[in-house]
Amino acid sequence: MNKIITIGREFGSGGREAGRKIAELLGIAYYDREIITEIAKRTSLSEKYVQNVAEHKPVIPFPIHTGRTFWAVLPDYGQAVQQEQHNIIREMASKSDCVIVGRGADYILRELKPFRLFIYSDMEGKIKRCKENNSSDYDNGANMTENELAKRIDQINKSRADYYEFYTGQKWGDKANYDLCINTAKIEITKLAEFVSKIC
Amino acid sequence: MNKIITIGREFGSGGREAGRKIAELLGIAYYDREIITEIAKRTSLSEKYVQNVAEHKPVIPFPIHTGRTFWAVLPDYGQAVQQEQHNIIREMASKSDCVIVGRGADYILRELKPFRLFIYSDMEGKIKRCKENNSSDYDNGANMTENELAKRIDQINKSRADYYEFYTGQKWGDKANYDLCINTAKIEITKLAEFVSKIC
Repeated sequence: MNKIITIGREFGSGGREAGRKIAELLGIAYYDREIITEIAKRTSLSEKYVQNVAEHKPVIPFPIHTGRTFWAVLPDYGQAVQQEQHNIIREMASKSDCVIVGRGADYILRELKPFRLFIYSDMEGKIKRCKENNSSDYDNGANMTENELAKRIDQINKSRADYYEFYTGQKWGDKANYDLCINTAKIEITKLAEFVSKIC
Repeated sequence: MNKIITIGREFGSGGREAGRKIAELLGIAYYDREIITEIAKRTSLSEKYVQNVAEHKPVIPFPIHTGRTFWAVLPDYGQAVQQEQHNIIREMASKSDCVIVGRGADYILRELKPFRLFIYSDMEGKIKRCKENNSSDYDNGANMTENELAKRIDQINKSRADYYEFYTGQKWGDKANYDLCINTAKIEITKLAEFVSKIC
């Protein structure tokens, strides 16, 4: 059975960086946005649309039939995108050892018993990281005030929690669903990556 | 400032063993039942009584004045024991580097910014540990059926959660209150101790 490491992560806590380092140290595949690109390819939908649909729970969980015309004009690809995401994650995990970031992969792959990591931080640490890493990965945090940034971080994490809970029925970030939960405000990502690569 | 490591732990997850190993690797003091012994010495109460009072939240959080005689016959040393426990933990932490297991030490010492570890496991792992370590530390688990043991483990952990929440106002085992949460069903205690001793 392949070695699979899944990473749940709070926005701003360095989960992506940790995932890349762990994959690098172990010399195994790393999947994050690659999943979105692959769904876009397979469905002929734009990456932007796929990302939006694949990373958020549906606004209306069950279609409300107020008029057929509405649904015909705005078809809902949400379920198809989720199904494709599910298939791709399972394909990737069956192909080779890998690190998969986000997307409820810990739940999707639960039968394969992955090593389930959750990366979090206190708000101060998250703000610091977003300020220091002024990229789209961190929502260009350096251009916002600390208050704006804190609000934005909470908003993104609320959306991640909603998504995870909607599709898994489990509580996002509850240690019971993970094997290791690490606060990156206290532990350096390099050291955490070294540790995980040794125990996996 | 001294290096202080606090360990919250689910019963049966190997928290005490981890604490001892971390203290040994770092060559620093280890406090667990030593705290009970010290309270007993200072208060002239029996260790058994102190342990019971020091590790459980009061059955009646606020005295009900149904009759003065009742309270005179059964004096309540709970508050005094808690105060003494609080003082001793602060004294120990100020004396030298140390590892302190349980007793809400993470909260009592929060101003000293300890490294806060929480050790847990899934039920299967906890039962296995209790069966394999047939000592009073593990409630002599080998003498019970798996069902009896699971019930007992849940009962003890419920009591620990109640105690922690009563005295700290925080949720026991919620990762937000810790720097590292480790599932010992997936991670060997020796490896966890080595990691903690390196990052602290």
